[in-house]
Amino acid sequence: MTNPRIAVVGAGAVGAYYGGRLALAGHEVCFYSRSAAAELRANGLHVSSYVGDFVLPAIQVFDDTAAMGPADLIIVALKSTAIGVYVDLVRPLVCEDSVIVCLQNGLGNEEIFAGAFGAERVLGAIAYVCINRDTPSHILHIAHGLLRIGEFSSRKVERAESIAAMFRQANVPAQAVDDLHYYRWEKLAWNIPFNGWGAALDLNTAELLATGAGETLVRETMAEVIRAANAVGAPLKMSHIDFEIGRTKPMGEYRSSMQIDRQNGRALETEAILGKPLKAAAAAGVIDLPRMTTLHACLIALNATTLKRA
Amino acid sequence: MTNPRIAVVGAGAVGAYYGGRLALAGHEVCFYSRSAAAELRANGLHVSSYVGDFVLPAIQVFDDTAAMGPADLIIVALKSTAIGVYVDLVRPLVCEDSVIVCLQNGLGNEEIFAGAFGAERVLGAIAYVCINRDTPSHILHIAHGLLRIGEFSSRKVERAESIAAMFRQANVPAQAVDDLHYYRWEKLAWNIPFNGWGAALDLNTAELLATGAGETLVRETMAEVIRAANAVGAPLKMSHIDFEIGRTKPMGEYRSSMQIDRQNGRALETEAILGKPLKAAAAAGVIDLPRMTTLHACLIALNATTLKRA
Repeated sequence: MTNPRIAVVGAGAVGAYYGGRLALAGHEVCFYSRSAAAELRANGLHVSSYVGDFVLPAIQVFDDTAAMGPADLIIVALKSTAIGVYVDLVRPLVCEDSVIVCLQNGLGNEEIFAGAFGAERVLGAIAYVCINRDTPSHILHIAHGLLRIGEFSSRKVERAESIAAMFRQANVPAQAVDDLHYYRWEKLAWNIPFNGWGAALDLNTAELLATGAGETLVRETMAEVIRAANAVGAPLKMSHIDFEIGRTKPMGEYRSSMQIDRQNGRALETEAILGKPLKAAAAAGVIDLPRMTTLHACLIALNATTLKRA
Repeated sequence: MTNPRIAVVGAGAVGAYYGGRLALAGHEVCFYSRSAAAELRANGLHVSSYVGDFVLPAIQVFDDTAAMGPADLIIVALKSTAIGVYVDLVRPLVCEDSVIVCLQNGLGNEEIFAGAFGAERVLGAIAYVCINRDTPSHILHIAHGLLRIGEFSSRKVERAESIAAMFRQANVPAQAVDDLHYYRWEKLAWNIPFNGWGAALDLNTAELLATGAGETLVRETMAEVIRAANAVGAPLKMSHIDFEIGRTKPMGEYRSSMQIDRQNGRALETEAILGKPLKAAAAAGVIDLPRMTTLHACLIALNATTLKRA
């Protein structure tokens, strides 16, 4: 892919940050945003980043993907709650050689694009980043930032490596991986306790870890995710728990994206983060996951109220 | 007890309402309130009740129990989070024949007064009431109202019946019971899911029951409370779950006291409502209570943050 035409679908914190880095590095990037297009067009994109602030004064942003034209590289950074419109949104961007990268959390996203446009087009990317949106045109990049990129339907790394190289050249640490499935579950080991309980209780990462009981709840929930991961063929080790707790403590009072969604009355990514992992575990014969199932029920109840209030 | 001198210790919604009913019926009632004494003295007590509004323009209220003099009947309506000051607060009120009634939720309150002043003085009362405090001098009595009253250390009913009769004469439905322990646990079957999850998730009763997943979470949590109750000698039936769900639905958007405490940044009654029931269950050999233990951890984590923010 030389000088690819890049479309970033979804300009929340993650889409705007990573797409913005590519644009800053000289790539041709256009963005789709349903809700923030006007503000981004008026103000440009402002990123306050711990690795260097930047501004894109003339960001190309559309509120209709049909107006964007086809793209060689389609980076999907939509919330998984938009799953019902994935295909219609992306279809106008797809041309013969388009590659689709799901830069999303949780399970079940790649499957949608694979089903609609062919599995061979699809990769997944996992962002290890502390990032929040201050306003639609101002992103706060607080810490971390690694992308792991892997094929959805094979263990090949060539294409993932070429995309990773493009990100690295744009000042984003990036790594091609040959086992996307494993890293999706590794990410869930953090997302399920911290996004999940963070949203359910409205507590940030420091608050979740401030008491012995809270830390134990996080650890026990993470242990269940690891048991589920092992059952579905992602051989995460229990020692991973200490690693995750250890790297989370320095984040301080970090609000997960799901906690912020709760606070802003937005739909929660309940199915991608909890529901589908639980279904995958059950299909592999693991059903005794009481922290996860309790959390799942909490998020469904909360989400119904969040949406009603919004 | 003819013309007893009555002291109500704690003038939150429950203490102010039930004590107010006794005062309205002509009894000599004085109240202790740490935080609301000045406002109650200035404004009087205003009760908006579905069984009839009333005002006590000249309520006797003190912010120091030492100024109240001894009482024949001491009704304790303190939050269980004040457990560390129970004895010092009540000691000045106790004379030779004083009777102490714990009008409180959860487990472990009667024990404190029994230990300090003798078990033979102590009864417990359980309020089945939907009641909130609008301001310290304005109580909203929304629905229900039954009091069940029983001895702490025996199955005798004579004394409980005389107190119940006094309440009935004051327009409060009241019943003497010969098994306080059973009814404490029966009340926990409601309090643990509805106060507990209501506070943890910040959802009212209607919101908790609005989704199938939420109702199932409530039912599964209640089923665990019933298993624990059976283990500690309170033979609640599983069919009680339908009864509790059935009587809760008509309450509508009812916020439990613990949800309100959360919203107002006050300490949560975590130990009385969750911690002590779990300890009692564990002592009886029942430890497999995943909904309850998860909820307990949630409330400890939340409470630490609530208190820090307050």
